[in-house]
Amino acid sequence: MFCEACGGRLTTKIPPGDGRLRAVCMACGHIRYDNPKLVVGCIPLAGSRLLLCRRAIEPRYGTWTLPAGFMENGESTAAGAARETLEEAGAQVTDLVPYMLIDVPDVHQVHLFFRATLLDSRFECGDESLEARLFEEDELPWNELSFPTVIATLRQHVRDRASGQFGFHRHTISRSAPAR
Amino acid sequence: MFCEACGGRLTTKIPPGDGRLRAVCMACGHIRYDNPKLVVGCIPLAGSRLLLCRRAIEPRYGTWTLPAGFMENGESTAAGAARETLEEAGAQVTDLVPYMLIDVPDVHQVHLFFRATLLDSRFECGDESLEARLFEEDELPWNELSFPTVIATLRQHVRDRASGQFGFHRHTISRSAPAR
Repeated sequence: MFCEACGGRLTTKIPPGDGRLRAVCMACGHIRYDNPKLVVGCIPLAGSRLLLCRRAIEPRYGTWTLPAGFMENGESTAAGAARETLEEAGAQVTDLVPYMLIDVPDVHQVHLFFRATLLDSRFECGDESLEARLFEEDELPWNELSFPTVIATLRQHVRDRASGQFGFHRHTISRSAPAR
Repeated sequence: MFCEACGGRLTTKIPPGDGRLRAVCMACGHIRYDNPKLVVGCIPLAGSRLLLCRRAIEPRYGTWTLPAGFMENGESTAAGAARETLEEAGAQVTDLVPYMLIDVPDVHQVHLFFRATLLDSRFECGDESLEARLFEEDELPWNELSFPTVIATLRQHVRDRASGQFGFHRHTISRSAPAR
């Protein structure tokens, strides 16, 4: 790996005053910090139904997923989640409420899902989707879901709908603690 | 800026299939993605009192702050918040509950504060702090707080304690919407 500041070679060492191994430039001393990334998404709701997309991209091509993706600089978490919903499902959402935070430390990610209301009944699949479809809860394609984060979020949602109480939840998914 | 993959020069352009300007290597085509960073921290509570630290570093040297810092790869949000509390205030916390999410899009950050219980009465200031101290709410140093995110979090906490209801909150702090 090379230094973003000067193009020199990076090495791995603990900088003075730090407690962690970092990528440090052998030429100019610049320290490269790598930090977790946020993935933001929605549970787009239309009454009792929710919108899923079927992935047209790897990984997990062909499986069903909630619209979600990497948050971009300059946007808020909610704006990012709404943008991903528009890009992947062609759907406009409103009234976004934070619902589920999932730590995925093995891959240096934090996922944040919002409950959101579909603005109207129009949706269409975007470039990254083969199909977008509204599902009643008893129709959800549990065996064809894309990721543990999506499974955990939908399971939580089914439990909360049964109880009528939607709070804010935090889960961890890791090799030592897979999705519940 | 230089390419992390080959050390070549970066330019700014919209890659094929993307909708945003990215830093792209002129030599090898590698795309550099910059994404928002997570800052995680605690409101460390001991009964009716809460723990603040006085900053020994810039920016805002000498002002009072909640223990918080950049989340590191390989840890969960709660683990990061507990680590920062140990590093900055020498305090161990337990029972971390997500409390406040603050979008700070102008600086590409998302701040997440947990309510947390001090494990015992021991604390001491770390290398990045001049002092650590427990405050009753009516003693809080409102005119000497470090950042709008800390002010917003403490104001919310005062409101919630008055009502007895601590939920999960989301705020946005930006040039167009400063801290409330």
